Amino acid sequence: MKKYAIGLDFGTLSARAVLIDDEGSQLAESVKEYPHGVLDKALPSGRPLGVDWALQVPADYQECLIDTVSEVVKGSGVKPEEVVGLGVDFTSCSVMPVLADGTPLCELKEFRDEPHAYVKLWKHHAAQYCADILNEKAESMKEPWLPYYGGKISSEWALPKIMQIVKEAPEVYEKMDRFIECGDWVIWKLCGKERRSVCNAGYKLQWRAEEGYPSKAFMKALDERLENFAEEKLSSDLYPVGSLAGYLTPEMAARCGLTEKTAVAVEIVDAHASVPACGIDGAGKMLMAMGTSTCHLLLGDEEKPVPGIGGVVKDGILPGFYAYEAGQSCVGDHFSWFIENCLPASYEKEAKEKGLNLHQLLRQKAGKLIPGESGLLALDWWNGVRSPYMDFDLSGVMLGMTLQTRPEEIYRSLIEATAYGTRRVIESFTDRGVAVNELYAGGGIARKDPMTMQIYADVCNREIHIADSSQSGALGSAVLGFYAGGLSGDMGEIVRRIGRAGGKVYRPIPENAKAYEKLYREYEELSEYFGNGGNDVMHRLKAGKLAAKGKRS
Amino acid sequence: MKKYAIGLDFGTLSARAVLIDDEGSQLAESVKEYPHGVLDKALPSGRPLGVDWALQVPADYQECLIDTVSEVVKGSGVKPEEVVGLGVDFTSCSVMPVLADGTPLCELKEFRDEPHAYVKLWKHHAAQYCADILNEKAESMKEPWLPYYGGKISSEWALPKIMQIVKEAPEVYEKMDRFIECGDWVIWKLCGKERRSVCNAGYKLQWRAEEGYPSKAFMKALDERLENFAEEKLSSDLYPVGSLAGYLTPEMAARCGLTEKTAVAVEIVDAHASVPACGIDGAGKMLMAMGTSTCHLLLGDEEKPVPGIGGVVKDGILPGFYAYEAGQSCVGDHFSWFIENCLPASYEKEAKEKGLNLHQLLRQKAGKLIPGESGLLALDWWNGVRSPYMDFDLSGVMLGMTLQTRPEEIYRSLIEATAYGTRRVIESFTDRGVAVNELYAGGGIARKDPMTMQIYADVCNREIHIADSSQSGALGSAVLGFYAGGLSGDMGEIVRRIGRAGGKVYRPIPENAKAYEKLYREYEELSEYFGNGGNDVMHRLKAGKLAAKGKRS
Repeated sequence: MKKYAIGLDFGTLSARAVLIDDEGSQLAESVKEYPHGVLDKALPSGRPLGVDWALQVPADYQECLIDTVSEVVKGSGVKPEEVVGLGVDFTSCSVMPVLADGTPLCELKEFRDEPHAYVKLWKHHAAQYCADILNEKAESMKEPWLPYYGGKISSEWALPKIMQIVKEAPEVYEKMDRFIECGDWVIWKLCGKERRSVCNAGYKLQWRAEEGYPSKAFMKALDERLENFAEEKLSSDLYPVGSLAGYLTPEMAARCGLTEKTAVAVEIVDAHASVPACGIDGAGKMLMAMGTSTCHLLLGDEEKPVPGIGGVVKDGILPGFYAYEAGQSCVGDHFSWFIENCLPASYEKEAKEKGLNLHQLLRQKAGKLIPGESGLLALDWWNGVRSPYMDFDLSGVMLGMTLQTRPEEIYRSLIEATAYGTRRVIESFTDRGVAVNELYAGGGIARKDPMTMQIYADVCNREIHIADSSQSGALGSAVLGFYAGGLSGDMGEIVRRIGRAGGKVYRPIPENAKAYEKLYREYEELSEYFGNGGNDVMHRLKAGKLAAKGKRS
Repeated sequence: MKKYAIGLDFGTLSARAVLIDDEGSQLAESVKEYPHGVLDKALPSGRPLGVDWALQVPADYQECLIDTVSEVVKGSGVKPEEVVGLGVDFTSCSVMPVLADGTPLCELKEFRDEPHAYVKLWKHHAAQYCADILNEKAESMKEPWLPYYGGKISSEWALPKIMQIVKEAPEVYEKMDRFIECGDWVIWKLCGKERRSVCNAGYKLQWRAEEGYPSKAFMKALDERLENFAEEKLSSDLYPVGSLAGYLTPEMAARCGLTEKTAVAVEIVDAHASVPACGIDGAGKMLMAMGTSTCHLLLGDEEKPVPGIGGVVKDGILPGFYAYEAGQSCVGDHFSWFIENCLPASYEKEAKEKGLNLHQLLRQKAGKLIPGESGLLALDWWNGVRSPYMDFDLSGVMLGMTLQTRPEEIYRSLIEATAYGTRRVIESFTDRGVAVNELYAGGGIARKDPMTMQIYADVCNREIHIADSSQSGALGSAVLGFYAGGLSGDMGEIVRRIGRAGGKVYRPIPENAKAYEKLYREYEELSEYFGNGGNDVMHRLKAGKLAAKGKRS
């Protein structure tokens, strides 16, 4: 019997399902946008949200899941019983409060108008003040897990988010039975059982194989009411990536057009799913998953503390390796911000006349520039900084503008800035003795934007291998689906059979690399000045911004 | 007999004539754009220009002069013989090489394709490397005039410009009989005599009443061939502002529709003409002439060295006072750059729908912001820095951007940056004991943009009096025309009679002033970091930019 698996990838704005055969070929694909998108201004009721909020509606996930999965099953023409497994990856840390039966609190009538009852999306940054408290306590209490999370916890992660709830909406905290990653919640919906992934707990909840979650004493120090948080609202019953969560419930099987024989794999963080998808199975290979933000994933043989990384989890991505995670908060988002907020009408007109989209036009113009020619230098901090500073009150900088500065120069300098940011991440690892021997890139930017990828190769002065799948997240999830569904072979073999390497390779151009070497040093110096205590102006500006907003309310 | 005078104002893009009666009322006005505008990409022949070049075509001045003057005479209906005087102000330092009879070199067939034969407009910045050499020599040779020009000479002034000619086009230097400010050249055209103004020589050629032009030894140190520059190509026959240059030539009288009885006043720098136009006649009153750039003019009782100012000239604006000049290179230019290069199509559409121009729409949106609310901070250095650093290799900075940053926030932060720049200029004076008691503002921005002026009042924490004439430059020139034409009364009386004060007054809003006080300190700290040796990144970026451009050619 031919065997198939489905990979289901929940991104920031949409869900995508792919159906893959056991040689790794894709037979069908379906994408559906979340009806409510990202709530960053107001709830569906119209109730306005504060600065830096980003919420989602969980019903959107379920709707998109059923629609996309049933569509790929139908579209591919395979028999439902031949679909042996289904894997899921999800943005992270995107978390929400639910009842004991999995009902999201925001679906209760009493909480429909309560922002804290909704999903806090990964890029919800309004818990920064909680992250600040947490980081201070963790440092002063010398928490043993701290060095393995880069010495700082991001406001994007689960603990600051639960702190914000307990402080701002204690009734929501009281009411919730579980506080859960949306990816784990989707698995629950699919197979009717709460089967949390070690990947989420390890990277986003500071759970470690030896010590478990942060101690009660620490949690109490954050807030009295959080003392028993782990016991009461989480679960210590965690499942390794690649393991079986269960099988489709009858209801889900029916709604998706599948059978109850389809195995469901434990969830994986979206970016991490790209590692098996790219065919990466060993130490020293770094994958950059390039989307709205970039996640850097590196397998290593040893566990070493690296400043500003997002976490290191044993068996967190593939069995037998320490999986390091680092990240840049703003990559594709950067370029979209520019297009939406800075691109003049004359360029829009020109693009239309030439039959190009705006990014294509800008790339056409920016691609003609020589490194250094614009005289511009930017810090890619429009969405704060993950690695190495883990500080979301840092903000963007652009420098070198003159009256001759053109939009394509600004656009290129933003791209260059994200490349410098990537190089800083790589050097954070190599400076601490964690090898980075090969560089892989996946995601839309990696595949579709040769100019950007050449700039990355030149800035990093390294070859970059592009993952040739067009949905590396979904393909990686399908790998996990196959494994859970009992496809023959160990994980390494399945990775090599289904995963896709061997795409285009970008090689540094020596002359460009030389010019960027100098510019990178400028980037580094400015980063240290603004990010590491030389001038705390960004924190003061942020404080002023909050004070000004406060005057409005 | 009723008496009238004409004021003629040569700006960066157009010339404007006004006809004024002897009570200060305007009877007619005419504006004409220079047919060739600013040449910053190529000569009329198509020959491309280098980075930072900005040239003009002198025939444009003559054409605009005749057209606008004849139009105001005709349009006002006054009798030609009742026009007793004509005054002229001009952008400065805008200089060109001419023959002994005043013919511009660029009009000779052999030089038509030679960029150095054209007018170097004030904002021609390609002589920066000459300014660097000059400043180094002046400092090492301890030139006595140096402290009175802020310790640094701008690349916008005459000496770097002539240095560039002698180095890059020695044949042009050889051929020219005179090197002359365009304003002085217009006077020559009008009355047939070379009558150079002390204002140009004093501010832009480092001429001082006691010592004359910089010494031969100094000029020789700059370049062997420049040893006799002052003797051979300039003139020591200089005329105070307010004095009579001569009377219209028969040809000019005929072409302008006037008579040979119309007196022509010695020329004045355009920004300086606004001082009498605003009715300013005493010490401690600073005028900001706000246009594409801003010129700060301050009358004082004593001569004191102030760092980074543009010059101090006795009797340079009004008899009996030391006239200080300082400046910001980029004000209106800043806002126009933003509109042209950064404003998204959606805003253009919205403006169209609302029937507003783009500046109006932006002001409507930006006017709703509270100081500090955007979290943005900019250094207004898009066109280099006059005061206090006198360094045109410095460049723009913007800081604090997030993915939520909107165009109107960027726009407002550019306006705020120019206001901080103005406050720095004011503090440069007051820190050195030169009083600034009253602040006046003239020019289009001052009159037409209440949001900007309120921001200036809040940032400077001072009242600002707006000049109520709509052509303060031209009105000031008319004052000089009346004086030259023998209107009864001394200069002070004529200034008070014709000049216009008493326009709108902007008063600081205490709460805003408090917020801006903090932001200004941030601006100051960042300025010192980037402008005064903390991090020379801007100079290195500029060098890299020139190197990259070099690779193209």
